[in-house]
Amino acid sequence: MNAVEWIAVDWGTSALRVWLMGAGAPRLLRSDKGMGGLAPDQFEAALLDLVGPYLDGPVPVIACGMVGARQGWAEAPYAKVPCAPPGIGNATRPKVADARLHMYILPGVSQDKPADVMRGEETQIAGFLAQTPDFDGVLCLPGTHTKWVQISAGEIVSFQTAMTGELFALLSGQSVLRHSIGPGWDDAAFAEALSDAMSRPQAIAAKLFQIRADSLLHPPAPDSARARLSGLLIGLELAATKPYWLGQRVALIGDAALCARYSEALTAQGLQAEQTDADAMTLAGLSAAYASLEEISS
Amino acid sequence: MNAVEWIAVDWGTSALRVWLMGAGAPRLLRSDKGMGGLAPDQFEAALLDLVGPYLDGPVPVIACGMVGARQGWAEAPYAKVPCAPPGIGNATRPKVADARLHMYILPGVSQDKPADVMRGEETQIAGFLAQTPDFDGVLCLPGTHTKWVQISAGEIVSFQTAMTGELFALLSGQSVLRHSIGPGWDDAAFAEALSDAMSRPQAIAAKLFQIRADSLLHPPAPDSARARLSGLLIGLELAATKPYWLGQRVALIGDAALCARYSEALTAQGLQAEQTDADAMTLAGLSAAYASLEEISS
Repeated sequence: MNAVEWIAVDWGTSALRVWLMGAGAPRLLRSDKGMGGLAPDQFEAALLDLVGPYLDGPVPVIACGMVGARQGWAEAPYAKVPCAPPGIGNATRPKVADARLHMYILPGVSQDKPADVMRGEETQIAGFLAQTPDFDGVLCLPGTHTKWVQISAGEIVSFQTAMTGELFALLSGQSVLRHSIGPGWDDAAFAEALSDAMSRPQAIAAKLFQIRADSLLHPPAPDSARARLSGLLIGLELAATKPYWLGQRVALIGDAALCARYSEALTAQGLQAEQTDADAMTLAGLSAAYASLEEISS
Repeated sequence: MNAVEWIAVDWGTSALRVWLMGAGAPRLLRSDKGMGGLAPDQFEAALLDLVGPYLDGPVPVIACGMVGARQGWAEAPYAKVPCAPPGIGNATRPKVADARLHMYILPGVSQDKPADVMRGEETQIAGFLAQTPDFDGVLCLPGTHTKWVQISAGEIVSFQTAMTGELFALLSGQSVLRHSIGPGWDDAAFAEALSDAMSRPQAIAAKLFQIRADSLLHPPAPDSARARLSGLLIGLELAATKPYWLGQRVALIGDAALCARYSEALTAQGLQAEQTDADAMTLAGLSAAYASLEEISS
């Protein structure tokens, strides 16, 4: 490929993803050396394992995600809402042994009350705002920890996290429900569970075990079980985040299949959400940081 | 000890407990050979490992719990509500190779709509009703899968399961919250979280991650984190089961520490619950089954 001009890095808890950026299309490299498995002095080597072969001189490396957590490579202290998504001027610069790496770690964003934090999503938000600078409304970033983010005048005004993705993974993979949940999907079951959870959110405490009991008493149910669980959890989340999305312009940023579920759920509430791709937004956010680095340098 | 007259067995998913019953006090034996780890042809050997040394002739063995599930030793088909807790007349008799074992497995109880099942709790209920035959009200059996059971005229009228214990174990032990949860306890945090979850049950979707965010932004919090999680989950359960307990006579059957939390939670709702010990009720239920076996035989 062409010479590497700079390197974009998305370093999460369980994975490291790197894009080599230059004249051609970005080249994606992956490693399972996530932040969760590394001590602070192991990050540089993990990065060099991936990018070392492509370096022929000093390059800016711009990273976002858990790499900037207290237990990461170097802590990038949170920016506090209300604030624009943090940019290159807020980056932390860890010490490196290899002088070719000009490292920048972008900070996450925190909120004092109610207490909340994000690391990584702020860069997707920066990417989204770089492409849609006039956006005024709410961003929803579905995932392990789904973020609902109120945006106004280019700033993150407030945000709220729901552990919906993690709850789904734990309940479908490790609870007693795992015996009842197959790979199938059932749209009607999703819609019904969603509506149940939104109208009586407390019922989820009882509805969860009903998925198991139904599959014991009225088999076969595994095809609807996954959709029921997903509908209950997303319904509970939508009931909790109603002040965020009700009557708002909403855009979804995330995995396409997961965004489709949220979109379906919001449509049932009479709301048409825009959808954008999470990786594209990450790359756009890191690119915006690189662009301002160029401006500072020039 | 004295001669073994009969054997009481509580065989759950992860543990096997056996009481040798005779003239003296019951003698408890334990094994980790729960139903979850055994194939149908391994149950008899697992039981003999524990009780073999104490047998000098044929004895009735009366068992309750997951041993009677479809994947257990032999399926003991559910009795259906409304019904009295099933007794010896409903027991399944698995084939045994050792003629000294006169095996009886008590069935669980099911409910068609809403779908629900129990295995083991029905025997604790039988024990409770053997001691308090005039009880009219609601039994709450807190545990991995907490049961709320409406009792009238000696019958189980309806019941509802909440996965509160399993959710607590998964969230405190395996989710991102595990980093924030210490062994400590904070009564005020429990009461506040309980009240939050009861008044706005949907808020739990957001409140869970706040436990994590709070511990990152405002340490130290681990002492209150466990109590907050417990309060949120029990609060959600009480909001869901309000039609069961509101204005009712309620008795708790379960682990003493766990019952104390439920009792505190119900007290905050103006309700004084009676408390009884789960093991004592299991033994009383199995003893009631043995007593009717004696009547049939004599």
